[in-house]
Amino acid sequence: MTQKSPLAPAEFPNLPPVAGVRFATARAGVKYKDRPDVMLAVLDPGTSVAGVFTTSSTRSAAVLDCQAKIDGSSLQGSAILVNSGNSNAFTGSRGQASVDAITDAVASTCGVPKDRVFTSSTGVIGEPLPHDKILACLDDLSAALSDDGLADAATAICTTDTFPKGSHQTVQTPAGTVQICGIAKGSGMIAPDMATMLVYIFTDAQIERSALQVLVSDLNAKTFNCITVDSDTSTSDTLLCAATGASGVDVAGSEEFSNALHATMLDLAHQVVRDGEGATKFIEVAVTGAKSQADARKVATAIANSPLVKTAIAGEDPNWGRVVMAIGKSGAAADRDTLTIKFGDVLVAEKGWVAETYTEEAGADYMQNTELVVSVDLGLGDGNATMWTCDLTHGYITINADYRS
Amino acid sequence: MTQKSPLAPAEFPNLPPVAGVRFATARAGVKYKDRPDVMLAVLDPGTSVAGVFTTSSTRSAAVLDCQAKIDGSSLQGSAILVNSGNSNAFTGSRGQASVDAITDAVASTCGVPKDRVFTSSTGVIGEPLPHDKILACLDDLSAALSDDGLADAATAICTTDTFPKGSHQTVQTPAGTVQICGIAKGSGMIAPDMATMLVYIFTDAQIERSALQVLVSDLNAKTFNCITVDSDTSTSDTLLCAATGASGVDVAGSEEFSNALHATMLDLAHQVVRDGEGATKFIEVAVTGAKSQADARKVATAIANSPLVKTAIAGEDPNWGRVVMAIGKSGAAADRDTLTIKFGDVLVAEKGWVAETYTEEAGADYMQNTELVVSVDLGLGDGNATMWTCDLTHGYITINADYRS
Repeated sequence: MTQKSPLAPAEFPNLPPVAGVRFATARAGVKYKDRPDVMLAVLDPGTSVAGVFTTSSTRSAAVLDCQAKIDGSSLQGSAILVNSGNSNAFTGSRGQASVDAITDAVASTCGVPKDRVFTSSTGVIGEPLPHDKILACLDDLSAALSDDGLADAATAICTTDTFPKGSHQTVQTPAGTVQICGIAKGSGMIAPDMATMLVYIFTDAQIERSALQVLVSDLNAKTFNCITVDSDTSTSDTLLCAATGASGVDVAGSEEFSNALHATMLDLAHQVVRDGEGATKFIEVAVTGAKSQADARKVATAIANSPLVKTAIAGEDPNWGRVVMAIGKSGAAADRDTLTIKFGDVLVAEKGWVAETYTEEAGADYMQNTELVVSVDLGLGDGNATMWTCDLTHGYITINADYRS
Repeated sequence: MTQKSPLAPAEFPNLPPVAGVRFATARAGVKYKDRPDVMLAVLDPGTSVAGVFTTSSTRSAAVLDCQAKIDGSSLQGSAILVNSGNSNAFTGSRGQASVDAITDAVASTCGVPKDRVFTSSTGVIGEPLPHDKILACLDDLSAALSDDGLADAATAICTTDTFPKGSHQTVQTPAGTVQICGIAKGSGMIAPDMATMLVYIFTDAQIERSALQVLVSDLNAKTFNCITVDSDTSTSDTLLCAATGASGVDVAGSEEFSNALHATMLDLAHQVVRDGEGATKFIEVAVTGAKSQADARKVATAIANSPLVKTAIAGEDPNWGRVVMAIGKSGAAADRDTLTIKFGDVLVAEKGWVAETYTEEAGADYMQNTELVVSVDLGLGDGNATMWTCDLTHGYITINADYRS
């Protein structure tokens, strides 16, 4: 990994074992030669698996395969295998052949049905996946399975990430205590309107698949679908959430569980933004007062994706004119004279113009913070939306003009 | 102006006088102190004036004023006044007061009705326009009016542009010969879905206002609305086209005139892209075979605005995987297996995968060109669209992280 993002959390969290799932990692050498690049998770029979996937029309063979399977039953156990270094996207019919070969082999090695083996691949697009290298590790992976391998898995799934991403919640519900642990990868090609990068969440809670799916889809809309690094949507985005039920604690309808799962997903989503390629600022864009929820989302997205807003923030320039521009281009209803813009607690603009109390010094001072909040109240209704993004810096150009060559 | 874009035309064109319109420029010192920053054009009575304007909901006072006037009659003459350095956008009710003061003064100085005075302002957003500085120059401007001041005007309207933009066509129509001359400014905050930056086109052709408006709106959709530098839409975008009729040549229905006006507008639109902030590559994105025209436009826009495609091109990296990604995220119907991608004449991908004849060397060689064509055939229908854009480089970050501070 290259130098760690200045926005990275101080340390990787301590992830306790989650009863009912075991992990292993291996060095298959798909692309990276100096670190583990494959992770395997094996889930006990009866685990509920829910998922959300990219809506890209050029999504990868692995995504298509997961989508076809996600609704099935896992009474006989299931498994998740992820490789980094190659996305197996836009690889024609060979892409599906690779997925078949891997799911076949994992099924027989782990003793689970083939239609319960989920795979993800992340990395370069359009190159054949050397799946033989992955098959060659399967026996080792199977032998190495252990309760506490999730932290290593977080590292194995990384590509251009500068730090591994993990999150954990211990949840007290009326029925008992459960654990939620999650890992994610993602740094570039990150935009909303999709599932997300790669995210795997494991819990020992007991919950029916259909209920879990509703919960995960709903929380995804408020977390991973509200982040953007560069407005580019990946062909591989996958989120899988597995509830093993091993705790015997039924969490159906539990607000505590829902809140904790939300917190885990939001934490991971924020970590992806914090690892945004070249990022030096973590930005919350909070829109209120829109005519509708859809309008609020349009305005938040336009601001969070605007290269001119993001470069201004990189330069610590309180250039609120660019925020006005982004609101204007969003397509949402907006009225110059009812608009209020704030940078943190600094009132910047209201009633159609710069606020009387605003000074360039106060704006410039605020912009020196690493964590920023840009608030826009449209003054037209009750619609609201929050998105998270990062700034656009020379680092992004350096990373992406050199990524492949 | 900073160092000239490497994509700039070799020289500014020779713009002949256009009978029926006179120009002048002056140094008002609105922001720039070392060069002319105001231009005045005075149009003979009977001139037809057509216009297209930004659709931004936070558009400037000058744009709102132009839109309210554009449909009127110009039998008593008309005038256009443009200043650079301050956009008079998001300046509350003071913005309209500035426009009123300027249009009043121009009307009385030039002897044209106030409702026939069009103004544009371009530059920083949200700061009061010091319109007194402009009023103080009006007598000098009026005294300096001349037939051949258009080249100077092209310079006076620039902001972050690295070169002035002009274009010229002499048109032979069955009814006689007419001249078309145009100037434009624009470099950043350039995206389609609007009129355009600032563009002023003058011709001595004779054509009714309503017919001219239809023609200009139609050609705008194929030229300025098909370019993007950074996906950010300006609050000031204005295109005005004035036909003085002084040649006595009626061009209603003339294909020659329509073609020449198209050529002038396309040339100016391309020059704006060539002056894209930080641009080192001029890129045509040509999409064919889409299910509909709207789908073709979605795909072309997604590719032309993708930071990952644009940084790859900056790095001369034939990263066609990112083109696949952009197609996938566009929301248009796309089928991996019917997709064809070409870089120039180099067939890159077809039938769902990299083309058998493609080599990384051929792709990398092609990417070293300064002028690039990325072609995508979706293989699904007859929809087609072409857009023009530039690459995304460190230059863009440098310009925009430091613009205001």
